[in-house]
Amino acid sequence: MSAPDTRIDVRIDVAVTPPYPVYIGSGLLANTVAGTVAEVVTEQHVALISDEHVAAHYADRVAQALADAGKRCTRFVVASGEPSKSLATFGRLLSEMVEAGFDRGGAVLALGGGVVGDLAGYVAASYMRGVAFYQCPTSLLAMVDASVGGKTGINLPEGKNLVGAFWQPRAVVIDVDTLRTLPAAEFRQGTVELYKHGLLADASILEHVPGPDYRQDAPSDVLADLIGRSVRVKADIVAADEREQGRRAFLNLGHTLAHALEAYSHQDHHPHGPLPHGDAVAYGLLFVAHLAAARGYADETDRIRDFVRWVSPRPLNVSDFGALLPYLARDKKHVGGAQRWVLLEHIGQPTLVSDLREDELRRAWAALVAETETVS
Amino acid sequence: MSAPDTRIDVRIDVAVTPPYPVYIGSGLLANTVAGTVAEVVTEQHVALISDEHVAAHYADRVAQALADAGKRCTRFVVASGEPSKSLATFGRLLSEMVEAGFDRGGAVLALGGGVVGDLAGYVAASYMRGVAFYQCPTSLLAMVDASVGGKTGINLPEGKNLVGAFWQPRAVVIDVDTLRTLPAAEFRQGTVELYKHGLLADASILEHVPGPDYRQDAPSDVLADLIGRSVRVKADIVAADEREQGRRAFLNLGHTLAHALEAYSHQDHHPHGPLPHGDAVAYGLLFVAHLAAARGYADETDRIRDFVRWVSPRPLNVSDFGALLPYLARDKKHVGGAQRWVLLEHIGQPTLVSDLREDELRRAWAALVAETETVS
Repeated sequence: MSAPDTRIDVRIDVAVTPPYPVYIGSGLLANTVAGTVAEVVTEQHVALISDEHVAAHYADRVAQALADAGKRCTRFVVASGEPSKSLATFGRLLSEMVEAGFDRGGAVLALGGGVVGDLAGYVAASYMRGVAFYQCPTSLLAMVDASVGGKTGINLPEGKNLVGAFWQPRAVVIDVDTLRTLPAAEFRQGTVELYKHGLLADASILEHVPGPDYRQDAPSDVLADLIGRSVRVKADIVAADEREQGRRAFLNLGHTLAHALEAYSHQDHHPHGPLPHGDAVAYGLLFVAHLAAARGYADETDRIRDFVRWVSPRPLNVSDFGALLPYLARDKKHVGGAQRWVLLEHIGQPTLVSDLREDELRRAWAALVAETETVS
Repeated sequence: MSAPDTRIDVRIDVAVTPPYPVYIGSGLLANTVAGTVAEVVTEQHVALISDEHVAAHYADRVAQALADAGKRCTRFVVASGEPSKSLATFGRLLSEMVEAGFDRGGAVLALGGGVVGDLAGYVAASYMRGVAFYQCPTSLLAMVDASVGGKTGINLPEGKNLVGAFWQPRAVVIDVDTLRTLPAAEFRQGTVELYKHGLLADASILEHVPGPDYRQDAPSDVLADLIGRSVRVKADIVAADEREQGRRAFLNLGHTLAHALEAYSHQDHHPHGPLPHGDAVAYGLLFVAHLAAARGYADETDRIRDFVRWVSPRPLNVSDFGALLPYLARDKKHVGGAQRWVLLEHIGQPTLVSDLREDELRRAWAALVAETETVS
């Protein structure tokens, strides 16, 4: 395998405590120059955690670069997919790290999508009460969402992300070359969060996405630029609110319904398997667009409906809104009894709303269902 | 059951971020006045985590006081003993909290000894990425050691405390009345950490412990005063070094050998069952006293040998020092390859030593073994 050239297109410094850099470009998994993964990891013993799919494509490249930089690398490969975000896999990784001789001076490097990042991050947060953590997100979703924010965690049988820690990485290395091997559906899934950041704070993203120049095979610098804008939106919000006490809740735009849809579809109600996160958030964005319009905020339902058509989500397959209510009530943003929804007053101006009535939710749901018959 | 009177003898403010109070006195588990547990917990839904022994004595009292203060209390009782510090129990508690409807606005209250405190603290740190945590330590060991420092965690099959988080409590309430129901052996165990704090930074503790006035049935204010001095030593060290980067390592005095002894005894080598933590630390203190004396530091071996006799630890039952070496190498204070030992230059003056040779360790071990034949 020949190592690709290294080019850093974007560098973002995330101003949490302590601050850390996000490098975005190409050739960053291989080579050992500034901004490559082998260079940003300063510890001598690295636990490279990946999943079967990603490891098959990229683990050799990263391990070789780490070796070239004089570091010891031990690989841990988990099954691809959400079930690896379990207490069982978490415990197995921790035990294997003990057996491999890791001490507090080692580092955990996540190479993969959101599942690997969340799981490996929680392992890093927990192993001997915390070791250094680095992220190489390889899916678009992980690049624009999970790689910034410090949220790590695993699932319980009772629901997603119910266990975890806030644990900031020391650095994030985004190699957009890895998007070339991503399934097309996953590229569209990831675009949902990228688009959400546009809605929240950067209208320039919405000028390009969706659009003729926004393609999985677009030039690396075009992808790096759009990913960089999206990461910057999230980085700015997270830096202002590291522990999710206030403004950070805006990132939850579209997610209240999405989490309920995902949880519902996990309970064997869905003939095509669990609803992917991006699909669920796409529906969630259109749902809150209807809620916002009905409240008299700017009506963005047309724009967002067009975007949801581009995403082509799987069918909703929810028999009745009442079936979702128990899952909505379980959302962990549901603090002290009041359910908070994020709505857009207009593009770039999110707001928190805690007084939505069930009849408002039901009307938005009816509109969403009527539209999904045309998009699915 | 009649509620005892409330009296606060000592209040210590632990200057971590954010700071929190430690109340020490009597009648603090019952009643609803300032400094009692029902008063310091400000959240409305409380997960009361305890073990079978402690719950039988005190859970009703605490639950009643919380109810009197208008709070909802859900009880979670785990088996008494170290095996509850497992991933399995951790996962079970988290799932039960979901089922009980806890959201991020709830609180975890640990009522018990070190096992309950470590486990409940890690549950609090992990549940929905962290909820409010309160501690009511009921063993002397937990009062003077585990209740201050923010260390939480569980064990792996490979070793103790290998998984966890730093998670500071919002408040600690130490009701010395609970010491009356503590088994005498556990009172002696806890005294080892209290004594260690005297060695590290407060010689006044050593004037009273051991001694004729230091008894489990001593007046509450006498016990509260000594416990307060010990807590203050630890609180001062922790506040200066919250994340265990430097000075906090001094608290490890006696613990390097102790952890190895405990791990060794857990591997079915010990005919009387695993060596209790306090016994292990007592041996560890005498071991490092020999190392210090051999290095030319103040010779405190006589004083510490007398103390170890008072503790009456279980026999060592280690066939050969070589059998301990793999366990010593696994110690998590073992950073980047260098094993660090805490030695006393003299009372009140600890120092870190990283260049101890195996022959020095073996000589101190030989001295310890020769002495334990007389103490056991």
